[in-house]
Amino acid sequence: MTVDSANMINAFDPATIGALEPRVQGLLQRRRKVLGPGYRLFYERPVELVRGEGVHLYDADGNEYLDAYNNVPCVGHANPRVAAAVAAQVKLLNTHTRYASEPILEYAERLLATHAPELGNVTFTCTGSEAVDLALRVARFRTQGSGIIVTANAYHGVTSAVAEISPSLGANVPLGAHVRTVPPPDPTLGDAAAVGEAFAATVASAIADLERHGIRFAALVADSLFSTDGILPDPAGFLAPVVDVVHAAGGLYVADEVQAGFGRTGEAVWGYQRHGVVPDLVPLGKPMGNGLPIAGLVARPEVIEGFGAAVRYFNTFGGNSVCIAAAAAVLDVIETEGLRQNALAVGAYLRDTLEAIAKDTPRISAVRGCGLYAAADFTDPATGEPDGDAAIRVVNGLRDRRVLISATGPDGSSLKIRPPLPFSQPHVDRLAEALTETLRTL
Amino acid sequence: MTVDSANMINAFDPATIGALEPRVQGLLQRRRKVLGPGYRLFYERPVELVRGEGVHLYDADGNEYLDAYNNVPCVGHANPRVAAAVAAQVKLLNTHTRYASEPILEYAERLLATHAPELGNVTFTCTGSEAVDLALRVARFRTQGSGIIVTANAYHGVTSAVAEISPSLGANVPLGAHVRTVPPPDPTLGDAAAVGEAFAATVASAIADLERHGIRFAALVADSLFSTDGILPDPAGFLAPVVDVVHAAGGLYVADEVQAGFGRTGEAVWGYQRHGVVPDLVPLGKPMGNGLPIAGLVARPEVIEGFGAAVRYFNTFGGNSVCIAAAAAVLDVIETEGLRQNALAVGAYLRDTLEAIAKDTPRISAVRGCGLYAAADFTDPATGEPDGDAAIRVVNGLRDRRVLISATGPDGSSLKIRPPLPFSQPHVDRLAEALTETLRTL
Repeated sequence: MTVDSANMINAFDPATIGALEPRVQGLLQRRRKVLGPGYRLFYERPVELVRGEGVHLYDADGNEYLDAYNNVPCVGHANPRVAAAVAAQVKLLNTHTRYASEPILEYAERLLATHAPELGNVTFTCTGSEAVDLALRVARFRTQGSGIIVTANAYHGVTSAVAEISPSLGANVPLGAHVRTVPPPDPTLGDAAAVGEAFAATVASAIADLERHGIRFAALVADSLFSTDGILPDPAGFLAPVVDVVHAAGGLYVADEVQAGFGRTGEAVWGYQRHGVVPDLVPLGKPMGNGLPIAGLVARPEVIEGFGAAVRYFNTFGGNSVCIAAAAAVLDVIETEGLRQNALAVGAYLRDTLEAIAKDTPRISAVRGCGLYAAADFTDPATGEPDGDAAIRVVNGLRDRRVLISATGPDGSSLKIRPPLPFSQPHVDRLAEALTETLRTL
Repeated sequence: MTVDSANMINAFDPATIGALEPRVQGLLQRRRKVLGPGYRLFYERPVELVRGEGVHLYDADGNEYLDAYNNVPCVGHANPRVAAAVAAQVKLLNTHTRYASEPILEYAERLLATHAPELGNVTFTCTGSEAVDLALRVARFRTQGSGIIVTANAYHGVTSAVAEISPSLGANVPLGAHVRTVPPPDPTLGDAAAVGEAFAATVASAIADLERHGIRFAALVADSLFSTDGILPDPAGFLAPVVDVVHAAGGLYVADEVQAGFGRTGEAVWGYQRHGVVPDLVPLGKPMGNGLPIAGLVARPEVIEGFGAAVRYFNTFGGNSVCIAAAAAVLDVIETEGLRQNALAVGAYLRDTLEAIAKDTPRISAVRGCGLYAAADFTDPATGEPDGDAAIRVVNGLRDRRVLISATGPDGSSLKIRPPLPFSQPHVDRLAEALTETLRTL
């Protein structure tokens, strides 16, 4: 195993470049020369893409791929409504927030109307990493603490401060001295109260450990779907006792909605809403502009007020006119096409379909998910241990059948299925057919 | 003076909202409600913008403003070539770098061809803040040090780690314990050798102080134009002895080109090139995509190799297809319209014009600049002290005459004139007329 594959699930291994077709070899050689060495590609045989439409992507030879992986183009690749909004705005004006402008206010008002009423304002950034980084700055200013708690395989982003709270980046990226990890919630413990109380107890222990080291607790930062911990949505409600523990200790609850937000779960626009809790700070990201770089931090006004007054925050491209136009079009499409409702219905069909496939193979030990975000756990039937190798062979088998997914979880043993929201039942059927074929070849 | 204006040069004071026209009052009230409290507006009377074209901006009443401030729309507001490139790409495909793609390679190859040959690769981010933050991660990985040196009023960005090296954010944003500031280069000391040796001596002292505190030196981070220190481009060449000191101490030289890059100085595409030095890491930003969020970190391959291999770096929106299309169009326009050469010629005319105006008033003590980035220092004729109040009155007087500039420097006493690159002599003349009129009213 190379450093690459050790470091990242589903990474292409550059040592195998000789096995690729000449055109892709050529691209990869140029890429290795001019792009920084930190770049990684997906799949044993990387995919070159030249066009997208809805839930489909196309390579240079015109081959069609079913996209069952990308959450960023949430309203579909090359969505015509988003494209038209961007094309119109980029011809008109693209400027920053130190001039007054109406469209950003209309968008902010619409966005906040989808959140809990306690969450009264939003600060725009360009990436989810920047939104989480800003949440850390605000949390530390507000609490005068620095201690952060995250789950054991969490991913929150790539700035210096956020990489320090992202254990899934691997052993070469040290966690901060002020960071504690807790095991992810264990859905096998029972109902929401049971799962929540157990999770809350581990968070309370981590808070105590921080304070024993003289580090004041600032915040629990949690992906509302625990995506990189293996996708752990249920039982909904388990976050409530955890949030109580966090608040009782004087800390803030930061709900990272970069993965769960914008209707992905089907059950609610925001992942935290499924748990019946109200966060203090809510970083948003990936699907917000259907691929245009826009993200943001939604906040309780009283939590961010002191930081805003004393520190100010200006992000040159954050909330620029073009990205706001894209983001407004995304909300339009989600609402008019009922994409949250679609995620609910098609997500249920997707899980049912995966369950049916799981019944026929001893390799898949569990199917989980919420809306259009599903996991299927691969387990070695002989040992009962998580089987990351099998999951990766399935991911690559699907890629060879032109269906794009990936894997997740601490062992990379869970299939990660997270398509654009216009995914429909026939798309699930195509995915299922490719998965069934692939399982036969293992 | 409110906290706002204490904190930021040329900020609107919300206490004066009652003096504004009703439409703008309404916008500002909505803004205060839904946008985070960290936002600030420019000018005593904020400007609402609805349209841009070339070097002009328009408000809701159709009034035309001459933009002599915004460097982000470097090839002009709503540039048709950029608009067409973005409109075409957003209809076709917008995806990330874990799939192979040709256009990002073509762009990276073109971009690197404008740099020193030692700078062999680029990693794309969305913002200059992210690019500087990545530079810090790379520098710390490479040197195993954490000590950073910046100038006394530097600004490099707003992530947690980058705010810690940005003293111009003010006293409410603490510098890191591992950060040292040095006085900016003093252009009055003589030729490049004299200015450079003096600056190098202060950097050497700061390195020694870091090491005396057990902090290993990692990098000097310097804006190639020292923009927030008051715009200090000359005498070109003064950075050479400084870079020698940095390298001799085992540190890296990070040339922050977010302000100086893409031909702004007229004399070179990149500000460091004027000084005859080769940096180790080069963060790029603002003008790169004419307002679309794209930025990047250009690097010596050997400096970033270890970080890239061990750590990896993925920025979901960094180098996305649409922003790359915008960035490629920006290079096209800069080259085909000769905008660097225009910056050189019109920049010289701008400085000559400002010098002529300065001769007629005792308030302006110096004019400086490079290409289309000019400063005019306001000094109280009675005391000889920097006069930030006069500069701000001039900035607002120009705004009332529909010419947009701002102020900079540690006292806010230098006019900051930094227009889009298609600025021409008649635009300088309009600026000069408004400035002359405003000076008469002081």
